[in-house]
Amino acid sequence: MSDKSYTPPKIWKWDPNNGGKFANINRPEAGARHEQELPVGEHPFQLYSLATPNGQKVTIMFEELLEAGIQEAEYDAWLIDIQEGQQFSSGFVGVNPNSKIPALMDFSSDVPLRIFESGSILIHLAEKFDAFLPKQGHDRTETLNWLMWQMGSAPFLGGGFGHFYAYAPEKYEYPINRYAMEVKRQLDVLDKQLENNEYIAGAHYSIADMAIWPWYGLLAHGSLYDAGEFLQVQDYKHLQRWTKQILERPAVKRGRLVNKVWGDDEKQLKERHSSEDFKGLV
Amino acid sequence: MSDKSYTPPKIWKWDPNNGGKFANINRPEAGARHEQELPVGEHPFQLYSLATPNGQKVTIMFEELLEAGIQEAEYDAWLIDIQEGQQFSSGFVGVNPNSKIPALMDFSSDVPLRIFESGSILIHLAEKFDAFLPKQGHDRTETLNWLMWQMGSAPFLGGGFGHFYAYAPEKYEYPINRYAMEVKRQLDVLDKQLENNEYIAGAHYSIADMAIWPWYGLLAHGSLYDAGEFLQVQDYKHLQRWTKQILERPAVKRGRLVNKVWGDDEKQLKERHSSEDFKGLV
Repeated sequence: MSDKSYTPPKIWKWDPNNGGKFANINRPEAGARHEQELPVGEHPFQLYSLATPNGQKVTIMFEELLEAGIQEAEYDAWLIDIQEGQQFSSGFVGVNPNSKIPALMDFSSDVPLRIFESGSILIHLAEKFDAFLPKQGHDRTETLNWLMWQMGSAPFLGGGFGHFYAYAPEKYEYPINRYAMEVKRQLDVLDKQLENNEYIAGAHYSIADMAIWPWYGLLAHGSLYDAGEFLQVQDYKHLQRWTKQILERPAVKRGRLVNKVWGDDEKQLKERHSSEDFKGLV
Repeated sequence: MSDKSYTPPKIWKWDPNNGGKFANINRPEAGARHEQELPVGEHPFQLYSLATPNGQKVTIMFEELLEAGIQEAEYDAWLIDIQEGQQFSSGFVGVNPNSKIPALMDFSSDVPLRIFESGSILIHLAEKFDAFLPKQGHDRTETLNWLMWQMGSAPFLGGGFGHFYAYAPEKYEYPINRYAMEVKRQLDVLDKQLENNEYIAGAHYSIADMAIWPWYGLLAHGSLYDAGEFLQVQDYKHLQRWTKQILERPAVKRGRLVNKVWGDDEKQLKERHSSEDFKGLV
């Protein structure tokens, strides 16, 4: 399958059997695969998501806004089971034509807005409530620099390292080495930044921390791909300090549980419709 | 090297011989490798870049701003030769600790600002000059949705498909299939969006077009990785319409030439310091 004699064909053809753990849901075409409307609750924000790192970014943001006393940020969080293909319903594709979680509907303004891509959702909520993203100057550019760093870097961690280390049908040496090197370089970038800064973008907690922590914090914590020893994550001392510091935040503890349907059964919340839903969990 | 008998070690170790075409510049550590200051010209914006797709995003944006009559957007564009490791100088790392082009210094305000990641640079310039990014409402969220889509999707095109199809030391079947499928899905996402919209984010040309075109437009044009036939890019009719439409813009023609040091010798501009530099080229 991957010996040196392989020569790509002139025209690529889809083999549905190629793809590892998620082969059953990935296809080379976009668009809706079945007709199904999305549920809509009573709050101004309707989130359709799952507690992957990209999902956690947004539920942490909502819980941080509520923790800061911004009651207008109340939200309903609905589960999108990607293993069941719920991201390919006509309703979901209408919110996010890219069929990836998280996706958000904002009904708080005159015109309903669809927002997709976790980074876009973080900016939208930050600007809406003037929180966790400074309006101008050095602190704004640094926050957006690092938010964009996360958007462009994490595909090498999730779609690259995580796939080949944890999910691919076989262990391929070259891709594992390629992505392990890049991820260690990324961890070192963060470690050096956090040596001289309490938070990612400087002195203040921001949407850059919320975007980076669910990927690189959980990796440093040993909770992602079971790769802590392989990547020697304990060596990144400043990243470890920050990882533990963020984990102590009440909003982070709550946000991590939303739309979670795996792991310890007592510490998950399939859907979230009210702050009451967390009772007994955190 | 990649047969079924491979088992990853408990602790990953760097092999400098692994890595293909760019093996000589990639390492698992971040930070400066040598002391070297960056050159600084006379304009308020100092760009340090190279005419890769990520570099083209920003030079196209600068040329579009100038084309729109915004003379305050004058810039010096300096070449960063990544094959020579110039992205690891102390000067460059000070602007972008992630050691990737493009990186920008903005001296137009009271405090000099560093901006890195192409998406962050596009937002910064758009907000500074109130151009190509609506200030609020549906048009702003759609523009940021698609800008973020590009940031999170293109690593599967460049770092995934491009690497394994064009640059890796051997042709590996599984990764090529994995990334070809994802890139075709992404092309279909864009094709469907452009079926009903003149530009990526709707009726108006925006930073979303500038971010997406240098990757997916050039791929659809057959100019990226020589992969047009392999991916059957001609099938995406609406993407093809948009690709040609953007290519006709004078600012795009100019922006593509800046910091270019390969291809047809008569159509490149190693450095850009004035609009006069394009004379005879476009």
